[in-house]
Amino acid sequence: MCPPALIPYKPRNPKTRLSAILSQEEREQFAGHMLSDVKDAVKDALCSPVLVCSELFDSEDVQVTITDTDLNGSLNEILPQTAAEALIIMADLPLANAEAIRRVTSTKMDMAIVPGRGGGTNVIFLKEPKRFHVDYYGASFIKHMKIAEEEGLSCEVIDSFRLHTDIDEEEDLVELLIHGSGKSRAYLEELGFSLSTEKGRVGVARNR
Amino acid sequence: MCPPALIPYKPRNPKTRLSAILSQEEREQFAGHMLSDVKDAVKDALCSPVLVCSELFDSEDVQVTITDTDLNGSLNEILPQTAAEALIIMADLPLANAEAIRRVTSTKMDMAIVPGRGGGTNVIFLKEPKRFHVDYYGASFIKHMKIAEEEGLSCEVIDSFRLHTDIDEEEDLVELLIHGSGKSRAYLEELGFSLSTEKGRVGVARNR
Repeated sequence: MCPPALIPYKPRNPKTRLSAILSQEEREQFAGHMLSDVKDAVKDALCSPVLVCSELFDSEDVQVTITDTDLNGSLNEILPQTAAEALIIMADLPLANAEAIRRVTSTKMDMAIVPGRGGGTNVIFLKEPKRFHVDYYGASFIKHMKIAEEEGLSCEVIDSFRLHTDIDEEEDLVELLIHGSGKSRAYLEELGFSLSTEKGRVGVARNR
Repeated sequence: MCPPALIPYKPRNPKTRLSAILSQEEREQFAGHMLSDVKDAVKDALCSPVLVCSELFDSEDVQVTITDTDLNGSLNEILPQTAAEALIIMADLPLANAEAIRRVTSTKMDMAIVPGRGGGTNVIFLKEPKRFHVDYYGASFIKHMKIAEEEGLSCEVIDSFRLHTDIDEEEDLVELLIHGSGKSRAYLEELGFSLSTEKGRVGVARNR
């Protein structure tokens, strides 16, 4: 009934591309709040979040699977053991909401995918997880579309900016401050971040 | 039956943020091909494209309105004269397709809006154009949401990365090379652009 939503998560020293504006401790907190927003959206969409970590990590409210390989290795161990449907969703999608996730999980095709900005893959939904394997990093969206084709799986590309927008760089924080409504946006504001407009272009400024 | 799709268009020296990788002539050609892709999508969605230009511009296949004011002035002159529904869509959205545009024009609310990356506004659909006025530049998405509220108009935000992705900078070309299927993608390829992956990050390279 409730398909698992596998969420790869790196608790220690995450989001290094934000190092210029956030300390390591702030990045760890921020990543935790983004994860929390993703978990909330996933639960609202009636999926069961399962964290997939390569480091020891305790969570009071969701199942955690600790693996000793990388992202691809971990997921490719889990998928063949998953009997029914499975969702894979990244932890840095704080604009995710239940409506967008339901557009993914209600696909009529064998699987659905949401591309991330820059060629990545942000969400994959699989009706038969054992027929697919993942290949993240680089232009993984193209690789995943090719794997689907090779495996004879029909695949719907879901057109969502909420699930397309992964938060990696300073300019991505603009999207979160404009469109976010959860804990990670509140945390940014707590740290003193707000929108700033210079020469007609919108960025973020931090008031310390 | 076919609502007008107002498309603001600047034929001369457009897309200056691409100057480092495209000559002025190439930028003008590229902007023309993006416009063509947008026109095709708009027509497939059963809207009638109308170009809104502040410079003299001839188009063999669509209506052109020449105005002598800026973007806001031009549109705010046209909207009160528009009797029925109207769509406003930017010319630099070459990933637009009919399906995404139909999600906008089929809103049950008084209007629909699609945010652009960085706080902008890429698409607006108005059931009663005379009740709205536009205020582009800067964080226009926030301004437009506020105008809707002030005018008592219910407004749906459409969640589409195809309409969210405006092509302004070099890194945006990655999206076009991955997700585009029209003339502007073909033109980029003709100019020698292709995807390149360095250190796991995807960019574009030009083979001259």
